Amino acid sequence: MIGNVKLGILGGGQLGRMLIQAGLDFNLYTLILDPDPDAPCKPICNEFYNGSFADYETVYNFGKKCDVVTIEIEHVNCDALAQLKKEGVTVYPDPEVIRTIQDKGLQKEFYRQNNIPTADFRILKDATELAANSDFLPAFQKLRTLGYDGRGVQKISGEADFSKGFEAPSVLEKLVDYEKEIAVICARNAKGEIAVFPATELVFHPEFNLVDYLMAPANISEELQKTVADLARKVLEAFDMVGLLAVEMFLTKTGEVLVNEVAPRPHNSGHHTMKANYTSQFEQHLRAILNLPLGDTKQHSAAVMVNLLGEPGYSGEAKYEGTDQTLEIPGVFVHLYGKKFTKPSRKMGHMTVLAPTTAEANEKAARARKYLKIIA
Amino acid sequence: MIGNVKLGILGGGQLGRMLIQAGLDFNLYTLILDPDPDAPCKPICNEFYNGSFADYETVYNFGKKCDVVTIEIEHVNCDALAQLKKEGVTVYPDPEVIRTIQDKGLQKEFYRQNNIPTADFRILKDATELAANSDFLPAFQKLRTLGYDGRGVQKISGEADFSKGFEAPSVLEKLVDYEKEIAVICARNAKGEIAVFPATELVFHPEFNLVDYLMAPANISEELQKTVADLARKVLEAFDMVGLLAVEMFLTKTGEVLVNEVAPRPHNSGHHTMKANYTSQFEQHLRAILNLPLGDTKQHSAAVMVNLLGEPGYSGEAKYEGTDQTLEIPGVFVHLYGKKFTKPSRKMGHMTVLAPTTAEANEKAARARKYLKIIA
Repeated sequence: MIGNVKLGILGGGQLGRMLIQAGLDFNLYTLILDPDPDAPCKPICNEFYNGSFADYETVYNFGKKCDVVTIEIEHVNCDALAQLKKEGVTVYPDPEVIRTIQDKGLQKEFYRQNNIPTADFRILKDATELAANSDFLPAFQKLRTLGYDGRGVQKISGEADFSKGFEAPSVLEKLVDYEKEIAVICARNAKGEIAVFPATELVFHPEFNLVDYLMAPANISEELQKTVADLARKVLEAFDMVGLLAVEMFLTKTGEVLVNEVAPRPHNSGHHTMKANYTSQFEQHLRAILNLPLGDTKQHSAAVMVNLLGEPGYSGEAKYEGTDQTLEIPGVFVHLYGKKFTKPSRKMGHMTVLAPTTAEANEKAARARKYLKIIA
Repeated sequence: MIGNVKLGILGGGQLGRMLIQAGLDFNLYTLILDPDPDAPCKPICNEFYNGSFADYETVYNFGKKCDVVTIEIEHVNCDALAQLKKEGVTVYPDPEVIRTIQDKGLQKEFYRQNNIPTADFRILKDATELAANSDFLPAFQKLRTLGYDGRGVQKISGEADFSKGFEAPSVLEKLVDYEKEIAVICARNAKGEIAVFPATELVFHPEFNLVDYLMAPANISEELQKTVADLARKVLEAFDMVGLLAVEMFLTKTGEVLVNEVAPRPHNSGHHTMKANYTSQFEQHLRAILNLPLGDTKQHSAAVMVNLLGEPGYSGEAKYEGTDQTLEIPGVFVHLYGKKFTKPSRKMGHMTVLAPTTAEANEKAARARKYLKIIA
């Protein structure tokens, strides 16, 4: 299935935008639903609908115009997607998979039920339950729903933190003493074919609690590469997933591999694949949901991917500083997301640095990021 | 200069479309002028103008809306571009360069004046002059202007062919007994920085007289690689070019290298760079005309690029046959141009095949092209 397919995407942010960029090569006709009238996808999709992807009627009416519906964000109305599926629209990932993943409580229980190793956890109804669980601290408290990019996650070390506890239903997750955080992106099409990308290593920003930069391939042993790829495949199969699945994992100091969380869509940890791998994660997601053969996931160059965040202290129309010095470094590529306005720590783009080795890529990335600033 | 630049492109075909795809990563605001109301660029540019790029007023009025104007086809109104330049619009390539290149007679004289080796030629006013030049035959007769994709070029072997001679001004070019045809794509920015892509080897379709497939890197000695790169650089400098220049060359059986013709824009012979090189020719053109540092031209994988032409015998709304079998071959990537209608030999897309060696890429490409057919 290629050419003239009407593909609807719930969400019109950067992930949708990069999906459309990949979809152009397949002649896809794209429809976008997003609450932001200036969403990054707007200028390049075929039809743009300004509305809430969390609203039943809006999603249902949008989906009825499409042959295939997918997502670039999990916080969507799954009831509407289930109804669309019932009425014959192709919906990938499956609405029930999205329903499980969008609720961190259900997601964690799913791992437990399927013998997928994950950090120990408890489910809390509200903040008053923190006190009864002080034996479990220190832990992360994560909102069950709507957390995103570091929002909805906080550390609860002891009694002193109870007052800031989330009021809404949450998951209390045991702190993991980990060596590295790893992401493995994999995909499965409706024929059941599976392809796994090489593992990537995530380095988090100490302040904003979101991915600061990423190294690919991950600096881990060949044996461990096999272990994490097998685990990703196991999770993919447990979900009976069709589409792309990004599996974030902790490698603990005691040598365990624990699944942290997953995203059933293209993911920040796979942006480098656009430049460093034969097939990009975006093309792979499209191949999977259109039931095309999956692409070769081989990585041809080492890569470092750096998120370009809005500079602290600046809000307003985005301006780009230091682009010349950045692009002067061989192997540095800039991808801007077309967002008109910047604010502190907003994801405005990313930078991929290619080199023969990750050490070289790291060195170049460290230089490049000193120059490029997004201000207002 | 990056972000929020208003880039006007004369021509809205596949080359413009791939320029826009590259430009999205730089947040460019794109305006397109094309006579086809369904031009491939239309759904993804910011502003689309339906009109003739050969008409003075149309081009002038279009250009006045832009910060930077470039082309994806040479057959444009250079007087309007010269006027725009005079009024402060950045126009790359320079209107005078386009004027020389769009006229094959001026182009050949330019090579002669600049000591750039090229096949011997004579300038003809019309078909009646063929008889007076029979000592020069066999030769190719090429229309001075408006030839494209094999149109406007024919072989004149002797008297029997005089009746089909082009009536319009033409160039009569000595047949070259060549071993290989090579293309070298290079670029220069306004600062004078130059970057050269590895040479590619063109294999022409025996029937349609346009590129059938292309191998990169070209299967030539290291010494010859240096020779052709140096010659490309010489041509670029002779034109005082800003932007991308594709230089087509003949490697003769006697070991000479002759410049055949050039294109001052992204070119069919560089499509593989989107998948096989660090920097694509499209990003490189943008970097050059925006006076950004040029990108690394290194090729990371061997590649074969095959044009996907409309299947003989089919005209009408395009349908794609055999996509599954094609995409099943690892390393095969399909790029469709979003053209609604197909006709015999129309360029509808291309296919890039990546592999560790060109021999492997060739073998895969031979398999892939048996499957993929564009019919109506």
